Amino acid sequence: MHQTSNFLHIEHIGIAVQDLAEANERYTRLLGTAPYKSETVESQGVTTSFFMVGPNKIELLQGLSPESPISKFIANRGEGIHHIAYAVADIKVEMERLRAEGFRLLSDAPSPGADNKLICFVHPKDANGTLTELCQEQNL
Amino acid sequence: MHQTSNFLHIEHIGIAVQDLAEANERYTRLLGTAPYKSETVESQGVTTSFFMVGPNKIELLQGLSPESPISKFIANRGEGIHHIAYAVADIKVEMERLRAEGFRLLSDAPSPGADNKLICFVHPKDANGTLTELCQEQNL
Repeated sequence: MHQTSNFLHIEHIGIAVQDLAEANERYTRLLGTAPYKSETVESQGVTTSFFMVGPNKIELLQGLSPESPISKFIANRGEGIHHIAYAVADIKVEMERLRAEGFRLLSDAPSPGADNKLICFVHPKDANGTLTELCQEQNL
Repeated sequence: MHQTSNFLHIEHIGIAVQDLAEANERYTRLLGTAPYKSETVESQGVTTSFFMVGPNKIELLQGLSPESPISKFIANRGEGIHHIAYAVADIKVEMERLRAEGFRLLSDAPSPGADNKLICFVHPKDANGTLTELCQEQNL
């Protein structure tokens, strides 16, 4: 086995879609499984659905309004992969490590995301054009 | 545990980069681990490097020439996530299933890819703008 990273695994891949109902139907046929959860996250301006792919997830995202970041992303470049999210054991430790490595984070502290997570984004310009999310499972 | 998909897990995420040496250095700091492999795949027009993230991989891709699909992707929209690859147990079975579901595949038969895989792509227009790769480990 090769040495692995500070991040535990790919938690999910976020895909920006125009019409969540249409995309749910399509991804159910593509992946061979139905979404196990649908969730609206007002604070992020999105409605989402989640599919399990073994230990990983696919998150489809539709913007709640034309001003939502997801709607603007689609207006600029069409539907497609929006972000990659990594599971981390301790998001504050990883945020501190990345800051020390010179990465710009989009928030000073973790914020609540979909699927009961604490999340934080790394600036895409610091990750070769890739919007990168860290997420930590919240203890209930 | 929720019902999972026909695909086993996310095998890797492919990220198109301008300068593989620069991106290797950056992703080593981001992920906290060095690439475990570097490989040139002439048939795909790319040079690549791979990082382990638990059960998943990040593949950085640089085009071998301006005519390479990766170089054209970057010229059109900049660096960023290029494709999502799913591990499958039997690529021919999955190709047949997807064809029957109406998905267009970019090749009639699996072809050799990086990292000792048989691969096939689904047309991005049939997956909400997401270039989707199936890959099966080759038996040596």
